[in-house]
This record gives sequence, structure tokens and C-alpha cells, in this order.
Amino acid sequence: MTLPAAPPRQLISARYLLPTWRQQDCIEDGAVLVYGDTIEAIGSRSDLHRRHPDLPELHEPHGLIMPGLVNTHTHAPMSCFRGLADDLPLMTWLQDHIFPVEARLDRETVRLAAELSIAEMIKSGTTSFCDMYLFADQVAQAADATGMRCWFGEVLYDFDSPCYGALENGLRLTGDLIEQYRDHSLITATVNPHSIYTCAPELLERCGELAADTVSLLVIHLAETQFEVQTCRERYGLTPTRHLDRLGLLGERTLAAHCVWLDDGDIELLSKRGVSVAHCVESNLKLASGVAPIPRLLDHGVTVALGTDGSASNNDVDLFAEMSSVAKVHKGVNLDPTVMSAETTLRAATLGGAEALGAGQLIGTLAPGKQADLIVLDLDQPHLTPLYNIPSHLVYAARGADVIHSLIAGRLVMKQRQLQTIDEAAIIAAMQALGDRVQAIRNTVRTSC
Amino acid sequence: MTLPAAPPRQLISARYLLPTWRQQDCIEDGAVLVYGDTIEAIGSRSDLHRRHPDLPELHEPHGLIMPGLVNTHTHAPMSCFRGLADDLPLMTWLQDHIFPVEARLDRETVRLAAELSIAEMIKSGTTSFCDMYLFADQVAQAADATGMRCWFGEVLYDFDSPCYGALENGLRLTGDLIEQYRDHSLITATVNPHSIYTCAPELLERCGELAADTVSLLVIHLAETQFEVQTCRERYGLTPTRHLDRLGLLGERTLAAHCVWLDDGDIELLSKRGVSVAHCVESNLKLASGVAPIPRLLDHGVTVALGTDGSASNNDVDLFAEMSSVAKVHKGVNLDPTVMSAETTLRAATLGGAEALGAGQLIGTLAPGKQADLIVLDLDQPHLTPLYNIPSHLVYAARGADVIHSLIAGRLVMKQRQLQTIDEAAIIAAMQALGDRVQAIRNTVRTSC
Repeated sequence: MTLPAAPPRQLISARYLLPTWRQQDCIEDGAVLVYGDTIEAIGSRSDLHRRHPDLPELHEPHGLIMPGLVNTHTHAPMSCFRGLADDLPLMTWLQDHIFPVEARLDRETVRLAAELSIAEMIKSGTTSFCDMYLFADQVAQAADATGMRCWFGEVLYDFDSPCYGALENGLRLTGDLIEQYRDHSLITATVNPHSIYTCAPELLERCGELAADTVSLLVIHLAETQFEVQTCRERYGLTPTRHLDRLGLLGERTLAAHCVWLDDGDIELLSKRGVSVAHCVESNLKLASGVAPIPRLLDHGVTVALGTDGSASNNDVDLFAEMSSVAKVHKGVNLDPTVMSAETTLRAATLGGAEALGAGQLIGTLAPGKQADLIVLDLDQPHLTPLYNIPSHLVYAARGADVIHSLIAGRLVMKQRQLQTIDEAAIIAAMQALGDRVQAIRNTVRTSC
Repeated sequence: MTLPAAPPRQLISARYLLPTWRQQDCIEDGAVLVYGDTIEAIGSRSDLHRRHPDLPELHEPHGLIMPGLVNTHTHAPMSCFRGLADDLPLMTWLQDHIFPVEARLDRETVRLAAELSIAEMIKSGTTSFCDMYLFADQVAQAADATGMRCWFGEVLYDFDSPCYGALENGLRLTGDLIEQYRDHSLITATVNPHSIYTCAPELLERCGELAADTVSLLVIHLAETQFEVQTCRERYGLTPTRHLDRLGLLGERTLAAHCVWLDDGDIELLSKRGVSVAHCVESNLKLASGVAPIPRLLDHGVTVALGTDGSASNNDVDLFAEMSSVAKVHKGVNLDPTVMSAETTLRAATLGGAEALGAGQLIGTLAPGKQADLIVLDLDQPHLTPLYNIPSHLVYAARGADVIHSLIAGRLVMKQRQLQTIDEAAIIAAMQALGDRVQAIRNTVRTSC
């Protein structure tokens, strides 16, 4: 499918424009003037109309325009394992269910499954995602083909990979991908050591050097489970956070996913080094990992972003659902209804995500000069009525399915819930057929046990 | 709006029929034969077609038929306060925001706001709800006018009510409502003392007697907050659960909402007396009340049902979202991924709810002789692909917006997401206007402070 070009100049307008995460910034009868991939102006519709009377306009009288959401931790191709196995201890889930089928992954499967997740993300309001997986170039190609904004990395660990074989190849591949995508307007390659328990100190150090040399984002799973912390202490006499710091991996271009089990010293260290955290509350709950100390991280000035994790452990990539969980769970667990307010949560899902990816100047809010990554919700629905406060509705009541239009870099990727750059019926059919094959592999694996 | 009649006999068919909460009961290419308000048969579509060749048929080739969801704890008219105030301590929220506007409620507001919640419930897969509020007859009338199945009760407490004035009137009103609705096929009145902290022991005893005399369900908030437990211990030297038991209120027709703070003795007592629990995880989290010990209640054989609570403290009445939260939160809080499996959670949202309302023989599963309360979901969507296990998808991936058709007692109340018994545009417009008036009242209240 060839990507449709954006009109050189266009107006997107709606009943409300929320250019940030703050209710006070809301503009009634607002509009965004888009020039190519960039926001030229925001303001009142009538004012922009007067100044630009003849532009093509996408107008939604009951709509809300807001920044597209930023999903900072995904394994997009894991959509092919969605619901394959649930409600199991982590090691049983991984060893008996995920690893056997993951070992048989190929490029084509990864490409299809990534495209399915991209379809789901666009249909639930996400316009950027940061992905870690095998055959990661296929994730990048899926993003490129669909007009999605994407950070991606080939996952690296001590053992051989079904994608690149020996580790040396993986490091070289990562370097090559970084060069290949250096000038791409929407896609950025990153350095992705999997975790401290699958990567020896030497590998972690080499990743740190590669990220530093290429000025790239380094993404790693950190302190996800109690088991990880315990193992790290036994092996290295340090918490995972301090272990990474000793190896020189903590810095302003480090994005640490999960961070569930942190002590006070870890939190101070993350803050001091300027590390950002990708918080994946639903995955952490579903895998029984625990609840990350997000309010304390925010108190220490750490940039907190949201992620869905892969849809095998969530089981979706819907950031609206994630926002609702984030805002509620921390209140309940801390017995404090004032933590993770709607605005704080919405910030994490937008500008927080952008900052975590080093793209705070580019996306995350709607402002002149920033990229035109925006979504339009239909407010004219029972569950969004009445309307007193927009961030409250976005976090506590709205659903991914309320998003009707989506623009990424000025290009309309969804209109009236119809995907413009993805053949939705074809991808669903292909993925269901793929699911049947995965099921067959599982049955073979089980029979052979 | 006059309710449309159901065809005398009709066939509902789809790619999958899940008549219970168990994957093993799933029928591929299944159908439900409906006669008036009742299920006459379930089985394979081809088989039912052969036996009944000329019936009107609603067929969904990519659909899933399942029991309608049962919401066992709501304050439906609180939709008018959705998002009015969030992220506040409970007493600030109640005293500074909810009570001042609630004091000005009238019948018309309650009726409108209840109808809005019913619209939202139908659009997210709920076919029965159990409601406690002021001017509760208006909730019943809204349910009656829209064809919704409803249990409802006028809330009773020690102080005067904007609805009935002095308490004596409230008890009489409750008795009258029970008589008035005794023969209604869809609507049942219940006895609703608000809580142990707003009802003196004498009122609680009189409620218990009224419920016993009229063989009615008794619904009460129980052990919602630590503060409630502490106050009860100070006043009566007992936990709220034991206090209710001493007053004779715990029995098989008692539905206790919340039950967050229970000790071992309380759990044993609820089990021994056959009390059912309406679990409202999202409200308990959002109000920072805590997380109820649901896995332990289930281990003790207590019937657990789900509720959304009112949409001022959730902020929706969507049981699909609630199921996802329930299944995840207990895993994360208990650090055990095996608790609240998809099937256990789905049972709570269907048959568990029916049993809690004393209607386990009537609704909650799809079986011959039961009422035809069913919903059809559209499975042909990115976030429901591929499909390995239906309960997993329903709990972890599906959204209320995936429900396309809904039948209550054989009557089609939603078709292709179009409500058949509610003028959706009119109710949204009326409620938005009402929201503007509530906002004006708030401003007055604030100005006068």
C-alpha cells in the first residue's frame, strides 16, 4: 500500500482542542493549522479560518483534538501470542508456552504481527511507540509502511538469537540499523540489551558504549521482578539499578522499563542520572510482578512514561485503558486518592513519553513547530457525558475506541475509524491464519513432551 | 418511546457461542433459539436451522454470543456527576463536591441520569443492574421504559432524604415499591440501608425485618474503608460484618457491596451466612479505599459478583473494563498470577452476579428455560486477533465497544450499536444541558462559601 501524502496545508478543528495535558490549556472551538508534517499554529477555529479561509479542513463538531499518545514500551510482534496462555506463573508461561513458539518465529510472522499491533495502536490513539523484539528490522519496516512513528531495537542477550545468530552479529546489526535509520523522519533505531539477568556485564558495557558512540537511546528491562533483584544481589552484590550504574549504563538517554522493585537508593540514582522510566502497570499486575513506586519516582523528578508491554502480557496495546489503570492502581495501593491525578497520568502518556524518548521538542504536545501527531475523539457518547473536565474524561472514562481520526506527521492514518495506511481486513485474516499455525505448533510441542 | 416487541420466535447465531464462562463449553457456529423472553434451545446453527428453517435470524458471521453481563452495584443516576471532581480525599470529594449538588437533586434529574447510565451499560454489554439511590422509583421507571433488567432500592439512612423526607416514609416507600414491582417481569425492588455508619442499629434491624417479611434482597455498603471499620469498632466494639450479623442482617438474601476490609472471622462469617459480595475494584482503587480480599472470599465459597459503583467514582459503568481490572489487580497485589483467572473473573461478571441477586436460575448463563439476556460481540478486530481462548479475550482484551447487539428478555435493545429503546442523541443533549446546570450550582455553592 502506498502511503497517501498529506495536503501541504490543512486545518483540523473540533469542539475542543487540548494541546497539552492541562485542563487550563483547553481551547473551545479550537483548531490546528498543519503545514506538511508540522504544526504551524494552534488557536481558535474562527481566528485560523479568518487567516486561512480556503484550506481543506477536517472538522469534528463534537470532537476533541489532543496529542497522540506515546507508548514507550512494547513488543509489538507479540500480538501473535495474545491470549495463548494466561494466569500462569512467569516461568511456566515463558518456558512452556512462549519460548517454544518464539523459537520458531520468522521475519514474516514478526512483520505481520507488528503491523497488527500498529493497527491496534492507531485505533486506540497511539501515534508513537518504542519497541524491543527479535527481527526488529521488520518492526521498523511495518512502521515505515504504515506511517507510524517508531523507536525500535533488536533485542540483545548472551545467547544466540533466532534473528542474528551469535551476539557479535547482533551488536553489528544494531550499529547498522542505527546508521540505516539515522535520517529517517519517523523511525529511530535504539540499543536494546534485554536485561541484567540475560546480559553479562561485558555485553551491557558494550551496549553502553555503542549507545554513547552513536548518541542513541538505550532501552532495557530493569528491576521487573523480585526474583531479578534477588539474583542480581547474589551475583553482583548490588541491586539491578546500581549494577547498571557501575557499568556506566545509566544516563539521560537510558529508558528503563518496569522499575517495579526499587529501593530509596535506586530511586535517587535514577533521578540523579536522568534516567526515564517506562511504566507498564497492567503487564506488571497481570504477570504478578508488583506495582512500581511511580508517585515516589515523580516526587524525585524522574521522567515517567507509560507502556503497554507486549499484548501477550496485557493483553492489548491500548494506552487509554493503561491510563485508567495507572491513575486508579496507585491510589488504591498507596491508600491516597491524590496521587496520579488525571493530569499527571495524561502527561505521562503524552509529553512524558516524548521526553523519555528524547523527543520532547518534537512530539507530546501540540504547539507550533512540533510534529503534527494528533488524534480526534468523538465526545458525543453516553460514557463521556456530561463533560466537566477533559483530562478526567480522557483518563477515567474514554476508551481507545472513542478515537475517530489520527494524524502522524500531518498524514491522516485513520479517518472515521477507518485505517488509511493498513488493509485491516487483510491483516486480521492473515493473523488469524497465523494463530492457527501457532496453535498447531503448540500442539506438536505438547505432544512431543 | 414504545418498546418494540420481540418476535415470538427467533434465532440468534454467530461464529462462536459461549453459553457460560468456560472455554470448554464453547460451540463453534452456534445459535440460540429464543421463544418470547425465554431461551428454548442452544446448539449448533446448522442443527437449529434444520429443525426451525423459517425463523427470523440475527446472524453474525464474525460474532460471539455470550450471556449479558450483570452489574451488581451501581448508583446509576450519579452519571450526572461523572468527572465533576476527582483525585480528592473521600471526605473532601463528598462534602465539598458531591453532597452540595446531590442535595439539589430532583426526580427529573435522577430519571435522565439513570437513563444515560442504562444507555452506557447496554452499549458496554450489561443487561442487568442492581442500583441504590435517591428517588429510586425513577431508576425503576427508566429501566422499565428502556427494557433493562433491574434490581433497585431507595437508599435509607438516619437523616432526612431529599426524596421521602423522614425515615418512616422511606421504610413505607420501600415496602410500597416492593409490592408495586412484585409481579414485574424485569424489575425488582430491594431493601437498601446505606451502611453501618449512616444507619443506627434500630434502622438496620427494621430493614432486616422488612427484607425478611417481603422475601426481598437486602443491599448494603459494607467494610468499604478502614475508617468505617475503625468507627464501628469504637461505637459497637465489633467489625462492621459482625455488627451486621449481631443485628441479624447477614443471610442468603444479603448483598454486601465492597467488603474491602475483612478479617479472617469476617470472611468465615460471610461464607457461613451465605452472603454475596459485590466487588467494585475500580471504585475502591480510585477512592483509595483499598483492594478487597476476593481470592480468599472465593476460597471460602462466597459468591463474588462484580459492580462498577457509580460513575462519579469509576468513572464509567463498563463491566468489560472492570473485568480486566479485577483479573489483573488481584494478581499484582497478591504477587500470584494464578488468582482471578479469566474464567473465574468472567463467572463473577455473569453467573456470579445472577446468583448474588438470587437469579441464578433466571440469568447469568445461556440455557434452555433461562431468560434470553444475551450480547453479541464483533470479534473481527485487531485487538481480538488472533483468537486462542475466548474467556481470555473477553477479560483481557475485549472492550464494551466491541458489543454490537444486545437482547434482554428476548427483546433487541441494541442492534449494530444503535440503541433500540433509547433516543441516544436526545439523552446526551439533555444530560449535557443538565451538566451545565450542575456546574452553575457548583459555582453558586463555591461563591457562597
